[in-house]
Amino acid sequence: MAGELINEAESNDVDLKAKSLTLTTKTNTAVSTMELGIYTFGDITPDPNSGRTISTAQRYAEILAAAKLADETGLHVFGVGEHHRLDLPISSPAVVMAAIAGGTKRIRLSSAVTILSTLDPVRVFQDFATVDLLSGGRAELIAGRGAYIESFSLFGDDFANYDALFAEKLDLLLRLSESERITWNGRFRSSLNNSQISPRPAGKLPIWLGVGGNPESALRAGELGLPVILANISQPPANFVTQIAAYRQRHAERGHDASTLKVAIATHTHVAKDSQRALDEFYPYYSAYFREHAPRANLSGEVLRDVYEKRAEPGGPIFVGSPQQIIDKLMYERELFAHDRFLGQVDIGGLPYAKVARSIELLATHVLPAIRGSGVNQVC
Amino acid sequence: MAGELINEAESNDVDLKAKSLTLTTKTNTAVSTMELGIYTFGDITPDPNSGRTISTAQRYAEILAAAKLADETGLHVFGVGEHHRLDLPISSPAVVMAAIAGGTKRIRLSSAVTILSTLDPVRVFQDFATVDLLSGGRAELIAGRGAYIESFSLFGDDFANYDALFAEKLDLLLRLSESERITWNGRFRSSLNNSQISPRPAGKLPIWLGVGGNPESALRAGELGLPVILANISQPPANFVTQIAAYRQRHAERGHDASTLKVAIATHTHVAKDSQRALDEFYPYYSAYFREHAPRANLSGEVLRDVYEKRAEPGGPIFVGSPQQIIDKLMYERELFAHDRFLGQVDIGGLPYAKVARSIELLATHVLPAIRGSGVNQVC
Repeated sequence: MAGELINEAESNDVDLKAKSLTLTTKTNTAVSTMELGIYTFGDITPDPNSGRTISTAQRYAEILAAAKLADETGLHVFGVGEHHRLDLPISSPAVVMAAIAGGTKRIRLSSAVTILSTLDPVRVFQDFATVDLLSGGRAELIAGRGAYIESFSLFGDDFANYDALFAEKLDLLLRLSESERITWNGRFRSSLNNSQISPRPAGKLPIWLGVGGNPESALRAGELGLPVILANISQPPANFVTQIAAYRQRHAERGHDASTLKVAIATHTHVAKDSQRALDEFYPYYSAYFREHAPRANLSGEVLRDVYEKRAEPGGPIFVGSPQQIIDKLMYERELFAHDRFLGQVDIGGLPYAKVARSIELLATHVLPAIRGSGVNQVC
Repeated sequence: MAGELINEAESNDVDLKAKSLTLTTKTNTAVSTMELGIYTFGDITPDPNSGRTISTAQRYAEILAAAKLADETGLHVFGVGEHHRLDLPISSPAVVMAAIAGGTKRIRLSSAVTILSTLDPVRVFQDFATVDLLSGGRAELIAGRGAYIESFSLFGDDFANYDALFAEKLDLLLRLSESERITWNGRFRSSLNNSQISPRPAGKLPIWLGVGGNPESALRAGELGLPVILANISQPPANFVTQIAAYRQRHAERGHDASTLKVAIATHTHVAKDSQRALDEFYPYYSAYFREHAPRANLSGEVLRDVYEKRAEPGGPIFVGSPQQIIDKLMYERELFAHDRFLGQVDIGGLPYAKVARSIELLATHVLPAIRGSGVNQVC
């Protein structure tokens, strides 16, 4: 039961191996396998060890290489973030996803996230429908509000309308997905009068709602019948159990199609063969990332080593460790959330590409087979 | 001299082989080679012979294949149009260009055209800078107003401001290209206040002005110091000699960098080994294209065979014929315009891909070597 899950989670010391799982909210979906993916913001950060900064063109090339590697090794999803700062130089995720599409065969391509509040939903839908057509139906979109606020002033949207903008634009985006001609009126965009929305995607475009911890956002996803992705980089995951349970409940109450009841979790991730090595080698990069790019006062500045280690603990949010530690935390979070997808941000803070590639390879070769073969995935 | 060129052109019966060229406006650029490329609008048209219509996904796949073939066979440019109709289902050229980038190595990638009047120049610049980064600096942009008007109502722009919208947006786009931070005020877009414009392209993004025959547009390109591309699908090319000469004159008068003084010509193109076969086999597709998609009253409806044949004549605008006929017309137009680039739209009206591919191959194997080796290209 949801309540039982919450209590287990909040106790924060669950012994996974000793318990049988009680993920009753998932019993109707039969056998499901958790999807495993990665995502990037493409941050440009001087390597804290060498002091070197790679060019934006090189960063893009490494992102294409990472996506190709993830595809070849069998990961399920590659996500691309949207920002509007020179130090986070990907502002057009759909364009990057299209470039990745050509070099990959199976991996699903997603934004992570599309800052819908400051975009025109018509252009967004057109861009992602185009990626879908170019990739054989592999495009997905995560609509979010973003942790950064530069796009509001850049595109002339009033931050005071933060929520109203997002709500209206999400409503329009969902309608565009339903029909190739649309008549629509709203507050923040000109009217549409039997307008043709072209092109149409290869299939129905999966649209997720990205949430960062606001309980109302998760409820909105349930209300609208959308899959939800929780980005959590700083708090114990157990804190969000109530929120995800509420999402499931609202989704069910509204009678939406069960195929749209999906949960994904996203966070910072670094994998090495040895747990201590993973923890030690990642810290300078992790720390540099927060020092250089943190979006808000409560996240900015130096992350002290003890805070970092706390976040990397079994009950903490970030995935830093050996493959077995990653597997253990996935299974712990699976008990909390019964989630369908995990996405790791593996390339932050100027981490050299060779280490990014190693994380991807270890996720694919060691973590993926374990979650495929685990009872957790087979019985839920 | 410009006047001499105009008189020659207007007489419309120039014998190229008997004349020496007098393209004095080009003498400062030393040896130049004309670039040869193709472009697509991705129109969906039932094949007039078989009655079959391919899916939008298949159309996209054939566009990727055409671009790859053009790259492999040595053509210089591949252009992608922007429209907002279900029967012309490419609305995001930059997304398509990014997908092409991954499968190609040398060919330059351009929009054809970007309907700047109804786009936000900031988003446009971001999209094309992204393509430039993903393609090793191969992105170009043609800013135009488009022959179709659907985008005005779709994006809430008033067609009454047709010219003012374009002028203001072009001004902003050019400024975005100059500087990574910008302060700007205008009538049709919110202000920018030391805003970061990210990402920056790999190199300076070539921005062309697309013109369709309006003399003021060509003068604007000269005034601003932009390369100009003339799309002419229905009139004798000689009619535009005055306009192109005026462009060159204005460009020179304003003292702009000579490297930005460039002329390109774009039109419908179909090549087959035998001239009569080219003419006969293309007509049903050419005719179907105008019947299904023509944007304006003066172009719509049935194009009778005699009109078609007139357009395909040596002094007409369209390039339909054997490789030698294509070469002859390129050289004729080169005398008129001393142009730097020719782009042929080779895939209209439901023409099967095998025939599109043959046009591309013949352009690459027969036409390209001839214009490379011709005195026309070497002495201008």
